[in-house]
Amino acid sequence: MTQNPTGQTSAKARVQAVSELLIYRSRQMALLTDLYQLTMMYGHFRAGRHQQRVVFDLFYRTNPFGNGYVVAAGLEQVVWYLYNLHFGPEELEYLRGLRMFSEDFLHMLRDFRFHGDIYAVPEGTIVFPNEPLVRVEGTICEAQFVESALLTFINHQSLIATKAQRMVDAAATAAERAGPIIEMGLRRSQNIDASVFGARAAFIGGCKGTSNLLAGQSFGIPVMGTMGHSWVQSFPSELDAFRAYASAFPENTVLLIDTYDVLRSGLPNAIRVAREMEARGQRLQGVRIDSGDLAYLSKRVRRALDDAGLPYVGIVASSDLDEWTIRDLIVQGAAISSWGVGTRLVTGFDTPALGGVYKLVAQAEGGVMQPRIKISENAAKVTNPGKKKVLRFYVDGVASADLIALSDEQFDPGQPLELFDPVHTYKRKIIQGYDVEELLVPVFQRGELVYELPTLTDIRARVEAGLRRFSSETLRHVNPHTYHVDLSQRLWDLKQELLHRWRPARR
Amino acid sequence: MTQNPTGQTSAKARVQAVSELLIYRSRQMALLTDLYQLTMMYGHFRAGRHQQRVVFDLFYRTNPFGNGYVVAAGLEQVVWYLYNLHFGPEELEYLRGLRMFSEDFLHMLRDFRFHGDIYAVPEGTIVFPNEPLVRVEGTICEAQFVESALLTFINHQSLIATKAQRMVDAAATAAERAGPIIEMGLRRSQNIDASVFGARAAFIGGCKGTSNLLAGQSFGIPVMGTMGHSWVQSFPSELDAFRAYASAFPENTVLLIDTYDVLRSGLPNAIRVAREMEARGQRLQGVRIDSGDLAYLSKRVRRALDDAGLPYVGIVASSDLDEWTIRDLIVQGAAISSWGVGTRLVTGFDTPALGGVYKLVAQAEGGVMQPRIKISENAAKVTNPGKKKVLRFYVDGVASADLIALSDEQFDPGQPLELFDPVHTYKRKIIQGYDVEELLVPVFQRGELVYELPTLTDIRARVEAGLRRFSSETLRHVNPHTYHVDLSQRLWDLKQELLHRWRPARR
Repeated sequence: MTQNPTGQTSAKARVQAVSELLIYRSRQMALLTDLYQLTMMYGHFRAGRHQQRVVFDLFYRTNPFGNGYVVAAGLEQVVWYLYNLHFGPEELEYLRGLRMFSEDFLHMLRDFRFHGDIYAVPEGTIVFPNEPLVRVEGTICEAQFVESALLTFINHQSLIATKAQRMVDAAATAAERAGPIIEMGLRRSQNIDASVFGARAAFIGGCKGTSNLLAGQSFGIPVMGTMGHSWVQSFPSELDAFRAYASAFPENTVLLIDTYDVLRSGLPNAIRVAREMEARGQRLQGVRIDSGDLAYLSKRVRRALDDAGLPYVGIVASSDLDEWTIRDLIVQGAAISSWGVGTRLVTGFDTPALGGVYKLVAQAEGGVMQPRIKISENAAKVTNPGKKKVLRFYVDGVASADLIALSDEQFDPGQPLELFDPVHTYKRKIIQGYDVEELLVPVFQRGELVYELPTLTDIRARVEAGLRRFSSETLRHVNPHTYHVDLSQRLWDLKQELLHRWRPARR
Repeated sequence: MTQNPTGQTSAKARVQAVSELLIYRSRQMALLTDLYQLTMMYGHFRAGRHQQRVVFDLFYRTNPFGNGYVVAAGLEQVVWYLYNLHFGPEELEYLRGLRMFSEDFLHMLRDFRFHGDIYAVPEGTIVFPNEPLVRVEGTICEAQFVESALLTFINHQSLIATKAQRMVDAAATAAERAGPIIEMGLRRSQNIDASVFGARAAFIGGCKGTSNLLAGQSFGIPVMGTMGHSWVQSFPSELDAFRAYASAFPENTVLLIDTYDVLRSGLPNAIRVAREMEARGQRLQGVRIDSGDLAYLSKRVRRALDDAGLPYVGIVASSDLDEWTIRDLIVQGAAISSWGVGTRLVTGFDTPALGGVYKLVAQAEGGVMQPRIKISENAAKVTNPGKKKVLRFYVDGVASADLIALSDEQFDPGQPLELFDPVHTYKRKIIQGYDVEELLVPVFQRGELVYELPTLTDIRARVEAGLRRFSSETLRHVNPHTYHVDLSQRLWDLKQELLHRWRPARR
């Protein structure tokens, strides 16, 4: 990476480094979009409206998994995509072959680049329904076109980061027994990118490492792993299998003890090998149980290891785990020192999609940005109009409420501020002496990348620091307190005005 | 593609063409694996056992979605992966950096290629629990190493193909009203590959097309799409928006009519534009409803279109659809001519992972292949030992039962064959005058590709032809009849023998 005169790596150098990552490299993604983005783009082009400036918001409406919040993730992928976005000859040839678009339109696409403005919440930010996570301002062509890819990246990574964080939190409930979570879901993930970006998101959510080497190579995530049942089966005896493994990895051996019978075979063989290792000045790192009653077996195994003078040998558990089984095992006193999770993490099993949407909120008329609203019979689906920002208010260091406001509104922390529920407007509270954080930060300005992509470690630290500022009622897994996300008075008034204008009373 | 002397494209030419597809090109996938594959490989190498020959089976245990079968898919991705599998300098450098492996092992990896045998069920085959879908025979190193990638590809694509087939079947229930299904799930898919290979699998399962241009470009799947709400919002009026779109796409216009109010605004505006198009000698292709009560609205819209002399205008419905809502809408008489499905298809929403596994079933000892078994407390998880094949018996053209047998067993269709349930062995039936199909076909032999990859259209046709040979009781969506998958007498005897040898009665 090159360094700029201040000694810091420049935003451009960092994204170029990202583009060189194996998982991004040489991937032409201009056609990662829905056909209707191109047909709308062409329609605007034909109507001579394609240079009109607009603002779109990316947000979601419902927290996944019954959680009280989402851990935002995926922005690096958005940055990589926008930075490299262009139509190459093959993409143009494919579009030409569809026989839907004129040559002058394809000619315009040849020179198409993203020249707009992006504001976004940094990865690792704790976010809530209806808050813009990405705000895109640009020509109607470019802002419309990027919808599908942005949604795909943010929806997927935010979903998995949130699921991982729930599991990490469940494992941390009982400090004494709790152990780290290792993501091992490659074989059940929804193809290659799901596994690699899923491992990245899981690391953001607090997982300690991944079994996935491609994720390790791509993002520097620590890789972890032991042995499969086939290792044990392939030797004449379980003891031979354990000895061969300990000989190959004296510093890093975790023995899988459930191939034949945990208590009658795997455990005594593991103890025997642990003692042989001790005699060589080595230490068995752990044993792994991948089936059966994990609570019962782990307690029996723990006692036997302790009785054998092997208190340092850890117990790794795996077998369709999620936040519920982890917590339940802890409640039962299971003696598990680390957790391998797969399917239920890497697919977001119980809510396998975050329903992020991307809505037009403002459009220039005669050079002036005018708010737009999307009406719906379902009141929860009516959008918040206008170009907006998101403020988080902290009172005594605790996140007290978020406020969605118009982008030009100012709030003086020296003055009391009255917040109100946007639906049940009689519910009001006044905050005073608050600190305020603006969640959306500039990422692209007029197509120039202005954002320093943080490292994965920084993103993960942001999650931890962010969570510490919320109350436990907001963070709990079941029936969490609904955190206040209010609208500013000006935004609320604007929304009512547009609602009545576009949806007059019916006869 | 080059042609061999018989005038056919060679297997090698076809896979080279596949490797050139945008979605595969330049992707170095050697590290798409779990660390433990490498540690086991290294352990075998250290123990001097890495040239031992073994057989692994890839199979799944439970049908997803409560379905009675799975549509096998993903083999093309397996072929591409194995054909191109090698460790490049960057992969070796990464592995070296882990400080777990010796230089002579890394040296061996540098020359590593897949030299084994692969037998697999062709994509589009209807398959059942416990049937080997892929059988891998090779050295313990190579056969073990490929586990993670093979599972990822087969699990993902088979899952989505099966989900798509359920939806297509639901839409086909009422022939008169039924219409095609269009996959539109990009924005909710679990990242890039999930969307592209998901669209491929959905096409195999019978979807008519996809909104995803990258999938269209990669696999030649027909692409489809209309407009988003933002198109309508961005015009001064809905009518202006409709007119502008019809002007851009006179042959291919589907108007989204629910932005403001379907019956009071979208529908009358669409009728007006349809008539304007007729005056120009054009025809409005359809209207789309993306929210609200689809049964009520589609019937009202249909009647109004018919009354306006526009019976040819179709109605596209979308909005969190799956096989249940599609069928329910048809039962209600909804007048929907095609269905756009997203989230619930592309994530396999209610069962977002197929739990395929990969188990050691045989291993050479002194040059002779010996069966291996994996025991479990859970009887359903005990594996079927030995190198096997899968036979499908048709009686009067109807698939009557499948039989898992040892690979060297022969069955004479001229003789009656007694089949029995492998658990409740008193349940027996004798079949006679049957046709037999061997499901596993050679794909690689000694590392050489010997399989002609079929086209996507052929794969899709295989699904349709395959389904026609099963009874409707096996195919129904709810509580399907459990299709018989039996073990041959020899395999059953072998399994019992190994079970008793490895798990003697306990005291």
